[in-house]
Amino acid sequence: MLERTLHLLALSGSLRAASFNTALLRAAAEGAPDGVIVTLHDYRDVPLYDPDLGLPPGVERLRAAISAADGLLIATPEFNYGIPGPLKNAIDWASRPAYRSPFAGKPVAVMSASPGPIGGARGLQQLKTVLLGMSAVVYPAPELAVGGVGEKIVEGRLVDAVTAERLARLVAGFAAWAPGARFDVA
Amino acid sequence: MLERTLHLLALSGSLRAASFNTALLRAAAEGAPDGVIVTLHDYRDVPLYDPDLGLPPGVERLRAAISAADGLLIATPEFNYGIPGPLKNAIDWASRPAYRSPFAGKPVAVMSASPGPIGGARGLQQLKTVLLGMSAVVYPAPELAVGGVGEKIVEGRLVDAVTAERLARLVAGFAAWAPGARFDVA
Amino acid sequence: MLERTLHLLALSGSLRAASFNTALLRAAAEGAPDGVIVTLHDYRDVPLYDPDLGLPPGVERLRAAISAADGLLIATPEFNYGIPGPLKNAIDWASRPAYRSPFAGKPVAVMSASPGPIGGARGLQQLKTVLLGMSAVVYPAPELAVGGVGEKIVEGRLVDAVTAERLARLVAGFAAWAPGARFDVA
Amino acid sequence: MLERTLHLLALSGSLRAASFNTALLRAAAEGAPDGVIVTLHDYRDVPLYDPDLGLPPGVERLRAAISAADGLLIATPEFNYGIPGPLKNAIDWASRPAYRSPFAGKPVAVMSASPGPIGGARGLQQLKTVLLGMSAVVYPAPELAVGGVGEKIVEGRLVDAVTAERLARLVAGFAAWAPGARFDVA
Repeated sequence: MLERTLHLLALSGSLRAASFNTALLRAAAEGAPDGVIVTLHDYRDVPLYDPDLGLPPGVERLRAAISAADGLLIATPEFNYGIPGPLKNAIDWASRPAYRSPFAGKPVAVMSASPGPIGGARGLQQLKTVLLGMSAVVYPAPELAVGGVGEKIVEGRLVDAVTAERLARLVAGFAAWAPGARFDVA
Repeated sequence: MLERTLHLLALSGSLRAASFNTALLRAAAEGAPDGVIVTLHDYRDVPLYDPDLGLPPGVERLRAAISAADGLLIATPEFNYGIPGPLKNAIDWASRPAYRSPFAGKPVAVMSASPGPIGGARGLQQLKTVLLGMSAVVYPAPELAVGGVGEKIVEGRLVDAVTAERLARLVAGFAAWAPGARFDVA
Repeated sequence: MLERTLHLLALSGSLRAASFNTALLRAAAEGAPDGVIVTLHDYRDVPLYDPDLGLPPGVERLRAAISAADGLLIATPEFNYGIPGPLKNAIDWASRPAYRSPFAGKPVAVMSASPGPIGGARGLQQLKTVLLGMSAVVYPAPELAVGGVGEKIVEGRLVDAVTAERLARLVAGFAAWAPGARFDVA
Repeated sequence: MLERTLHLLALSGSLRAASFNTALLRAAAEGAPDGVIVTLHDYRDVPLYDPDLGLPPGVERLRAAISAADGLLIATPEFNYGIPGPLKNAIDWASRPAYRSPFAGKPVAVMSASPGPIGGARGLQQLKTVLLGMSAVVYPAPELAVGGVGEKIVEGRLVDAVTAERLARLVAGFAAWAPGARFDVA
């Protein structure tokens, strides 16, 4: 059992209403073990990155949410073998100053879902490179890359028992590992 | 000499007014050989990718510009070792349908500039993976990754002769190679 | 029809006798269109890369074979999401001097096969980055990443008609595209 | 102060006698804090990966050394923007069975050195992807990518004070972080 409540912030790589990855994160929240709270953060109000804009309200909200969290869960499709633009854009806003941003030292677990057989596994590699590039700590358990998600998530509900069990195991494992893996940027 | 005018579309990875990469593309346009026209496209009006939005006007404009071009020049900083969010976002909108989008078969040359010594070279690798993932044809000449750009581009003007010469060579080489490398998606 | 015979050199990412990827290349050779000859090259005699060794005979043989070819076909599993060590080792020996090696300007098509659903698709991204890093020209058609290969290649023979048809299309498309895409290193 | 001695295994990405990266690891061993022992492992006797060979003695020796270590230090040049073949080959031998190999759950810190300005920074990204692909835990502090190493390491000795200080900080930080970040593969 965890000594205190662990707060995980969840970011979805897709903004569409019927997103499989957003649904996966909702299922992660529901299946989280006692003492772990998963909160989905909608970053739709974050504008295209342009430092000339200063610090828009949506960006401040995102940065504060990351800073306050004990760890992050990111579920994302791959777009063109890479990170979806809106997710990368939100990450970029929250990544300043370099190596000392809200991401620095923060444990992060990544997963993906897509209709095809590859399940978004290529995009996850670019995402992990970016996370390490901000000094985030990447959870090293085997990735959950859910292929054929159209049959596993139906009307926004995760209905596949094997995936649900793998997802619950990932969240529980991450919650147990994250506090010790945290990294203090000197 | 080229048989007909070659139209290259230029995309900058940075939206800020004083962007080094935008300045690099302006210098590329000025130094282009006879018969090659480089046109900078501002994609600031492209919203965050969300297929629920349909096809917004800024996206249609971007897609039409890519379709009409004989090739693309992209100059971009790296953000967190990856592609800047706004650029990736614009690419994602223009990448549908997969493997048959305006990018499919289109020759593309990439370059980067940044104040540090690495010059954005890590981000270019993710960009090239994404371009190939859309069946674009990536120009294989050694990358122009301009480090220490703060002394080479001053008040928006490229003042470094060595970089100017490498840039002119890259544009001329790309213009000569692109027509034959084009790829017809079956 | 091609004007003259096109010689493609084939490299397998696996050295084991019963390799699926080697079998895929044999099938590519058998299904090649008229005027295209695919020759498998065994690089088992290439030692671990160490420039202190000079130019060992196996390396000279590999370099000569790449230089003589009109293009390359590489079929490889992914090992730990990356390029198998023996294949990367052979590539490294053939990559000197940088940007002017036997690989420079040479068209290359990549494919992969593996028992799992992802089919080696992650490793192909690292391979394409490495190829472009040597100024090779990467064929941009959608990748052939054969998942579940255990049922498609049996006793060293490709028995899956859909895969055979996709493979034949890839080789024919590559052979048509490669001559024009060749790139002369200045 | 550390409670007990921490044993770090060091792997160099280059086999040549005068390797800058091997020299960097020797300097890391000398500058390690009290209670941290860094042991360089020479994997020159590991043959090209071929599962038909069974488990050659050099491979058993490498696997045992990784298993016994509390963490790994890897210093490597980039070869063609990727991992040197011999290093990748050694990693591949030590990576079986997938996700449960001697690498699984093991903390690893990476660094690189090269004569050029980029310092091997592109190759480190492929290395980190591979390490995470084996469920190793990647140290997230900013990378030590030593450019212009020809003036910093002379006759096998690290003579640059700034690099020496950054190296000592990296080893000390890694040693403090590694025990808590270890990950138990279920």
